[in-house]
Order: sequence, then C-alpha cells, then structure tokens
Amino acid sequence: MLRVTLSRQCAAEAVGSALLLAAVVGSGIMGERLAGGNVAVALLANTLATGAALVALILTFGGISGAHFNPVVSFADASQGGLSWRQAAAYSVAQMIGAVVGVGAAHYMFGLPAYTWSQHARSGMPQAFSEAIATFGLLAVIWGCARRRPTTTPFAVGAYITAAYWFTASTSFANPAVTVARAFTNTFTGIRPVDVPDFVIAQVIGAALATVLFRWLLPLTPEDASRVTVPHAQSGR
Amino acid sequence: MLRVTLSRQCAAEAVGSALLLAAVVGSGIMGERLAGGNVAVALLANTLATGAALVALILTFGGISGAHFNPVVSFADASQGGLSWRQAAAYSVAQMIGAVVGVGAAHYMFGLPAYTWSQHARSGMPQAFSEAIATFGLLAVIWGCARRRPTTTPFAVGAYITAAYWFTASTSFANPAVTVARAFTNTFTGIRPVDVPDFVIAQVIGAALATVLFRWLLPLTPEDASRVTVPHAQSGR
Amino acid sequence: MLRVTLSRQCAAEAVGSALLLAAVVGSGIMGERLAGGNVAVALLANTLATGAALVALILTFGGISGAHFNPVVSFADASQGGLSWRQAAAYSVAQMIGAVVGVGAAHYMFGLPAYTWSQHARSGMPQAFSEAIATFGLLAVIWGCARRRPTTTPFAVGAYITAAYWFTASTSFANPAVTVARAFTNTFTGIRPVDVPDFVIAQVIGAALATVLFRWLLPLTPEDASRVTVPHAQSGR
Amino acid sequence: MLRVTLSRQCAAEAVGSALLLAAVVGSGIMGERLAGGNVAVALLANTLATGAALVALILTFGGISGAHFNPVVSFADASQGGLSWRQAAAYSVAQMIGAVVGVGAAHYMFGLPAYTWSQHARSGMPQAFSEAIATFGLLAVIWGCARRRPTTTPFAVGAYITAAYWFTASTSFANPAVTVARAFTNTFTGIRPVDVPDFVIAQVIGAALATVLFRWLLPLTPEDASRVTVPHAQSGR
Repeated sequence: MLRVTLSRQCAAEAVGSALLLAAVVGSGIMGERLAGGNVAVALLANTLATGAALVALILTFGGISGAHFNPVVSFADASQGGLSWRQAAAYSVAQMIGAVVGVGAAHYMFGLPAYTWSQHARSGMPQAFSEAIATFGLLAVIWGCARRRPTTTPFAVGAYITAAYWFTASTSFANPAVTVARAFTNTFTGIRPVDVPDFVIAQVIGAALATVLFRWLLPLTPEDASRVTVPHAQSGR
Repeated sequence: MLRVTLSRQCAAEAVGSALLLAAVVGSGIMGERLAGGNVAVALLANTLATGAALVALILTFGGISGAHFNPVVSFADASQGGLSWRQAAAYSVAQMIGAVVGVGAAHYMFGLPAYTWSQHARSGMPQAFSEAIATFGLLAVIWGCARRRPTTTPFAVGAYITAAYWFTASTSFANPAVTVARAFTNTFTGIRPVDVPDFVIAQVIGAALATVLFRWLLPLTPEDASRVTVPHAQSGR
Repeated sequence: MLRVTLSRQCAAEAVGSALLLAAVVGSGIMGERLAGGNVAVALLANTLATGAALVALILTFGGISGAHFNPVVSFADASQGGLSWRQAAAYSVAQMIGAVVGVGAAHYMFGLPAYTWSQHARSGMPQAFSEAIATFGLLAVIWGCARRRPTTTPFAVGAYITAAYWFTASTSFANPAVTVARAFTNTFTGIRPVDVPDFVIAQVIGAALATVLFRWLLPLTPEDASRVTVPHAQSGR
Repeated sequence: MLRVTLSRQCAAEAVGSALLLAAVVGSGIMGERLAGGNVAVALLANTLATGAALVALILTFGGISGAHFNPVVSFADASQGGLSWRQAAAYSVAQMIGAVVGVGAAHYMFGLPAYTWSQHARSGMPQAFSEAIATFGLLAVIWGCARRRPTTTPFAVGAYITAAYWFTASTSFANPAVTVARAFTNTFTGIRPVDVPDFVIAQVIGAALATVLFRWLLPLTPEDASRVTVPHAQSGR
C-alpha cells in the first residue's frame, strides 16, 4: 500500500468535502426549483443526489484519506487508534474548509450570492434527538462495516444516509462540518446559525454512544486498528 | 472468525431492529407529511428509506448476529440447524423489544405521543395472501443467496423488500416483529391490532413453504449449516 | 459445484418467473392506484419494483438455473453451447407457466379477477423497434457481463431494465414469456393479445443481433461455454 | 486477458455510446411526456435511467474497450499512458458517431423526426462553471477508483452522474460527445448548438484539473498505467 503524506490526505478530505456539500446544497436548490411546491419530490431528489454522491466520493477518496468528510468520524477513528489526534485535527480543518467552499460553488452554479445566512429554523428536542439518532446510526454503520466487511462501507454509508434523510425529523445532518457549512446557505438545505450548536452537541453524543457500543460488540484487536473506517493508505508521517 | 457471545448477538438484533423500525415508521411519517396528498410519492419515500436501511443495517450487524431482525428468519434458520432453538427464541425476544423501542423513537423524533394504537385496517384474504407471498419471497431470497453467494444477501434482501412494498397489496410486512411493532403507530405504516394475527399466520405459512422448497432445490450439506442466512460469527456458547 | 437436476432447474425458472411477473404486474396496479393520475409517478414505482425484483431474483435463483426467466435468453444460451436445446425448451415452458401463474397471483393480491385480456394497445413500427432495441441491449448486457465479470450480471441486468423502462417507447418487455403473460392483465402493464406477435418477433431479432455482435466482439473460448449467462450448477443429466 | 483488436474496441465504444444516448434522450422524452408538467418528476426519471444505463453499459463494455463513451476520458487516459494518442482519437470518432446514431434511434422509438436542432438555451458563466465542476468530479471519480478499486468504477460513475444531474445547474453533460449529440434533439435533454463550444471548453478544463490533481494525489506507478480507467483487454496492435 502506497504511503500517502498528510498533506495529500488533507487535500483529499477538502476536495471530497467540497464536492459533497456542492451535492447536498446544489441538489436541494435544483429540487426545490423544479418540484412545483411538492416538498416530498424535492426531498426525493435531494436524497438521491446525496446518497449517490456519498457512494461515489467515498469510493474515490477512500483509498487516499479514508474519505471521512466528517469531524466526528475522524475523532472517533482517533479514539480507537486509527488516526493520531493530530491527524484528526488536521482532517477536521480540511473538512470544514472544503465544506464551506463547496457551498459557495453550489451557489455560484445556481446564480446565487456566494454566502447568505440561513433562516431555516431547526430547533427543539425532537430535532436534537433526531441528530443524535442519525449520528449514532452512521457511526454504527461505519464501525460494523469497517471491522467486518470494509469493501462494503461506501455502499452502506450511502444507503444509510439515503434512509436517514427520511426517517429522522432533522433530515440527518450527522456531521458537524456539514452542519456549519449549511448555515451559510439560505436555501432548501440550510440551518439557522443559532441552531448549529445543539445539532453538533447531539451529533457528538450519538457518535460517542455508537463507538462505545461497538467497542463492546466488536472488541478491537490490534489488526483492526489499522483498518478502522474505510481502509486507507498509511500516512507518510 | 471472532466468537461472539449470545448477549452481544441479542444486543445487535435489538439495536438493528430498533433502527429498522425507526426507518420504516419515521420515513412513513415524513413521506406522508411532505407528499401533499399524493400517496404514491409518500410510499416511494417510505420504500427508498426502508430498502436502503435494510442494506445498511444487514451489512452493519450481519457479521455479529446474522442481522435477522425477523423471528421467522431466526426460526427458519433454527429449523435448518443454523441456530439452536434457544438462540432463535432469544433472538426473537430481542427483535420484538428493539422493534417496539424503534417505533417509540420515531414518534419522539416527529413530536408524536410515544405509542398510539393504529386504526389502519389491513384485513381480508387478499391481504393475508399478500403477506404469505411476501414472506415466501423473502425467505426464498435469503435461502438462495445465503447458500450460493452469501456476500450478496444484504443487497438482495434490500432489493427484494424495495420491490415487495409495491407488488404486494399489504406493502409487505413479511416479519412478525415488524407487524406487532407497527400496531403501536397510528401513522402511515400502522396496522390495526386486530389484523395482526392473520398477518403473522400468513407470514409463518409463507416462510415454511419457502424453506421446504429450498430444502429440495438446494439440499443442505453439512458445510452449509454453518453459513445459513447472512454469515455470522459463532456464538460463544 | 453441486449438480442440479433439470427438474429442479425448471422449478427455479418457474418460481422465479412467477415472482417476477407478480412484481411487474402488481407494482403496476399499486402504482396506478396511488399515483393520483400522474403516469410518471406510477411508472417510477413500477420501474423501481421491477429493477429491484430482478436483482433479488437473479441473485436468488442464479446459482440453481442461471435465472434466465426469459426464453430468448435460454435459446441464445443454447445457441452458444451453454444449455442443450432440450434444456432451453424445458426452461421456456417452465418460464411461460410461471409467468402466467404470477399474473394470477398479482390479480388475487389486489382483489381482481384471475385473468382478463388486456385492452392496452401497443402497436406500430416505433413500438416494435423499441422492443428490438430493448432486447438487443438486454442480451448485450448479459453477454458482456457473463463472459467478463459474471458476478455483476444480476446488478447489470436490474440496472439495464430500470433504464430501458424509460428509454424505450414500449417500456421494454424484452421477453416473450413476459409479453404473453402481460396479455392476461387488463391493468397498467398489460398488452393487447393482438400486439403480442410483433413484440415477440422484434425481441427475437434484437436478441439474435446482440448474440452475433458479441460472438465477434468476444470470441467464445471453450472455458466460456461453461459459464454463459449467470454462472449456474451443472445439470444432472 | 484476451487481446482485443482496435476495431473491436471502437465497435464497443460506438455501440455503448449509442445505447447511452438513446437512454439519455429517450428517457428525457418519456419523462417529460408522462410527468404532467412537474419538471422534477421528469428529471427524476431521466436521472434514474441515465445512472442505471451507465452502470449496465460500463459493466457490459468495460472488459472490451474500457467503456469510456467520452472523448475527454479517452484523452485523459492517453495523457497518462493508458491508451496511445491514436487509440484515443479512434475512440473519440467512434464515440461521436455512436452518440449521434443513438439520438436518432431514440427519436424513431418515440415517433419523432430523425434529427432537429435543439432550441434549449444553456448559456452563461454559471452553466459553464457547472460543466467544469461536473467533469472535474467525473474524472476525479474515474482516477480515484481506477487506481485503487477498479471493480467499483462502473458503480461509482453511475452514482456520480446520478448525483451530478441534480447538483449542477447544467444537469452535468460532462462529455463532449454527449454534448454534441444532444444538440441534435429538440427535446427535454437538448442543448442549442450555439451553446456547445462553451460546454466543451469547460469540460476540457475540468478534466485537465482533475487529472493534474490526481497525478499528485496518487502518483502514477508503472503498474498503474496498464489499468487506468476501467480495466480492459490489451489492444491487438
């Protein structure tokens, strides 16, 4: 397996996160514009695009950086020895930068101003509980697949988010970088900045619970540590 | 292959069944709320979420417990020597508890009371016949894939249920734990408690017919017994 | 590889064809009933169910009989030495019986009379040309995948028919057994008996052209003959 | 691996491109006719058919020619040593001829004149920027998958285009042969001839950027050169 430097891994995380956010936000704009007021049809389009983009992007960047595109995944990975804490921090910065750039790219493609604060209220305990469930499920999928059948992780994650867009009341952000970036778009997929902290806290709680559960369900062996989340190349440093 | 204790296997069945029911019931609520009265659009959303959730959850928990999430699958597996009868009984209890908890979680996410009896009538011979066909097909898919190409079972089961939501008049419950749990939700995917017994009887008949048919189509060899349904770790006891 | 008798293979073809037709016809009925007059939404449901059913059923029965469910596939296979002509004839009878039984099962599930002649006109050269293209494409997919990457055939065939439902004016029957059976249903997916012969002739022409083309594109080697179409067990006789 | 002559490879590229364009244009016509004025529903049908056709056709023809169906893919492959420049030129001619024939076939199936210039305006910087992003992403997916997990490329490309139809304002042509051919259809998927040059220039820029980026992210080793893009047979000359 080729050794990949941390700078290349961070570039992969940034580019992949940018394309992911372009897909989430762009397909939300297109879906809402074309759906003639039927919100379910708009959300179907948004779901299809997001799930399919995840499959494609995880397959594309998984072999370089693991294709996390998500700080809670990177830190959960670090908590189990898959990444160093320093790598996890670098990944998270790259993910955040990429995500915000991707939102701007989507806006430019659809002829909108670069950034506008979202007015879309997503508050209250049911919303926060939805985010905790959504992120618990996402991390369960990642831990279960990565330790038992890692080649299927890209498909399992894409399928899970496809489902979670519909079965959680919050449409399953499940990702702090995605949540922050979506505060910058006053379109279908936006979230008011004031609602961001509760979402992120709930996501961290959900991810922690899934990580603890799977540590008991599938006790970590030394060999596992090298292939947590999507199998990826070793960092050069 | 790691040895997994029965308690871990039951935990996997319970958590997986809870997420499955949250997906079925939650996406039904979201679909109906957003579809503006077009029932086909609501059912498309419900179908997409359920099929995708099955793929993700079977991939996630298959390596621990086999990811049955379904008492007739566990008992059919036991009838062919894949599980002990005691394991099948323990699995079924775990599935039932998880399924009911999952319905409550969906209700909480969407701001509804924890549990309400369904008023959704699903009675008559065509409905029962639909459930027999649905469960016959599900067990056929499981037996055919598990004995010949077990890595494809998660995808085949997700695809089958995606189809069966539309081609059976009952929208294919095909699972006694799912059927009982859906009596506790007075939403899109509910079923009146009084209609539950006929559904369960039909499901048992369909599953038994498929098991008998595939026992003839694909005679069981000793090696097969160890990998019925989704391949899973050996129980510790 | 287990040896499978011809009677088991024909049973697999019959049961699989019955479930396939139940899926095609049943999802057409459900789609039309729920779509509130939007034919595109009804056809989306019908497409999703048919494509997903094909993936599940080919994975399920492929290891027993090859999962043809289609006389032109069986005879094309025989023309290249994959089946004997006698097997192809037996397969075709089983497929036809199963297909007609499946239509009756769909009708019973939806509370309709067992069989009614279709009034759905599908005539004219563009329709026949559509069927020739549809079947040409189907056989191309089968030959291309079966000789190069046979484990992907179930997914490729499901994906192809998903596309062909929308890109051919006839919605891509591409199968004489399916065509005849759909003459027995006066619902969304029916075809007038008088239009059946042109469809079958066009299907045979399309299949023959694809078989000739791929014989040139991918010259048959002796090893190929044993794994034409979906890999399956050797017949016992 | 069988050696395949360049004439066979070009035939595979032509037939595959013809079926791809028939799928794109035909499903656009069917979707618009049936959707009752809801453009989102029409585009969902068009998306589903295009993504599924790509999966099926790349699996079918990948083992013969690599299944590029796209001049920028062939020339990007040549730039990295996967094809000779002469092969890339021959591929491009075959792709262009096949694409135009496929549009004519779609028109004939739906009872339309063979060819009509499109009146569909797709101009301006956001559209061109969309095409650059779309093609950048497509080439990223191809390079990332082909060098790390080549058996997944057909699924990743199909998933990527499914997403890109919705997240780019141009609905992601991402292919000069497709762009030119779609100028010949005055239907849902057409593009005015006058808008073609900007699209092609943007596609070339996007493809070049992705190729440069992945050359840095995944430095080419000699073994890689033989399996760029979809793995395919060696040309006979």
